[in-house]
Amino acid sequence: MKELIKKLEKELSCSAHDIDHTMRVYNLCLELAKNEKVNMDVLQASALLHDIARIKEDNDVSGKTDHAVEGAKMALNLLGPWGLSEAKIKAIQHCIKTHRFRTSNKPKSIEAKILFDADKLDALGAIGIARSYVWVGKNNAKIYTDVDLKKYIKENLSGSPTGRIKDKRKHSPQIEYETKHKFLAGKLYTKQGKKIAKERTKFYKDFLERLQKEINGKL
Amino acid sequence: MKELIKKLEKELSCSAHDIDHTMRVYNLCLELAKNEKVNMDVLQASALLHDIARIKEDNDVSGKTDHAVEGAKMALNLLGPWGLSEAKIKAIQHCIKTHRFRTSNKPKSIEAKILFDADKLDALGAIGIARSYVWVGKNNAKIYTDVDLKKYIKENLSGSPTGRIKDKRKHSPQIEYETKHKFLAGKLYTKQGKKIAKERTKFYKDFLERLQKEINGKL
Repeated sequence: MKELIKKLEKELSCSAHDIDHTMRVYNLCLELAKNEKVNMDVLQASALLHDIARIKEDNDVSGKTDHAVEGAKMALNLLGPWGLSEAKIKAIQHCIKTHRFRTSNKPKSIEAKILFDADKLDALGAIGIARSYVWVGKNNAKIYTDVDLKKYIKENLSGSPTGRIKDKRKHSPQIEYETKHKFLAGKLYTKQGKKIAKERTKFYKDFLERLQKEINGKL
Repeated sequence: MKELIKKLEKELSCSAHDIDHTMRVYNLCLELAKNEKVNMDVLQASALLHDIARIKEDNDVSGKTDHAVEGAKMALNLLGPWGLSEAKIKAIQHCIKTHRFRTSNKPKSIEAKILFDADKLDALGAIGIARSYVWVGKNNAKIYTDVDLKKYIKENLSGSPTGRIKDKRKHSPQIEYETKHKFLAGKLYTKQGKKIAKERTKFYKDFLERLQKEINGKL
């Protein structure tokens, strides 16, 4: 395990998707697993490896790489020396492939559902807010924007709220909240995940409202 | 004025110190000026120009450039065509030179004190939190750290809480709060500035406490 975490530290070098994110998701997976019957080998390996191809996606200027699909492929090589059965490796690949929000590959196993939920929880609450602004810093995006959302979706998200962002410099956590974060709780699979997500979504929303007030000189 | 703002947009290209920060500080200056007797020419020009040398400081790998000192010099050229008196230009230069927290150049005029306060207010509250994590993203710093503060100050801040950060990748908003943000309110000059700062400091602190709880699996 230690060896794998060391390897992951090298592969995951961006602040928003670094080894700390991986370990938070790992811990959340263990928390959510308490209420479910899961295969721990599959869940733990999936949690540790879920973002292994994130840098590949971030570095692909064509925008074609899907880190979930690519990560599932990469996991095969990394898991080689672990002596896991073929069935477990396939189950892990399923978890990794289906963990992202913007995809048509949906989680089917309980382990995949837990990983999906845990990963989304790390995008909400105070940690979600922190990670959103880290993304802003990395991409020279906006701290705050005052846009017509419908027009923005048409122009910068190719017409769909879940579309790929054309120009990241025009994007902001507010827009991300309106097109993604506020719907996350409703998309989760586990009961405990949904409960935590609802509370964290409210915290995120309250923060954005407070930010708007400060910017408009109301606080 | 429009021409100057356009020029500033080009000069200020980082998310944490961009034209939006400048305009927020400008608006806060007008707010704080309501309770004081000020020269508006001096205050407005200072607010607009205070971070003009920020990129120069950020790009200087030697770490020797002080954007406040450098900005005061640059302001002279920029203000040339405005037809301001020599006294006003000197007063503006004083404001710019003394606006930063980590300096021995202290603000003496009321305009300089207001600019100092307004600039610090933008580092607190929700906007301060957002800007702190933008900084994390830009510098590949840490979202969250668990360090021995005294040891950290000795090793990464050259022994002083207000010392220059040696390795930004080890820094985090928590450390920034413990070494800078929590003392800001007490350093401000205007009554109104102090009042807003106190409330915004509490908001910042509460956010960090909440973040810690989430990371430790308590929320």
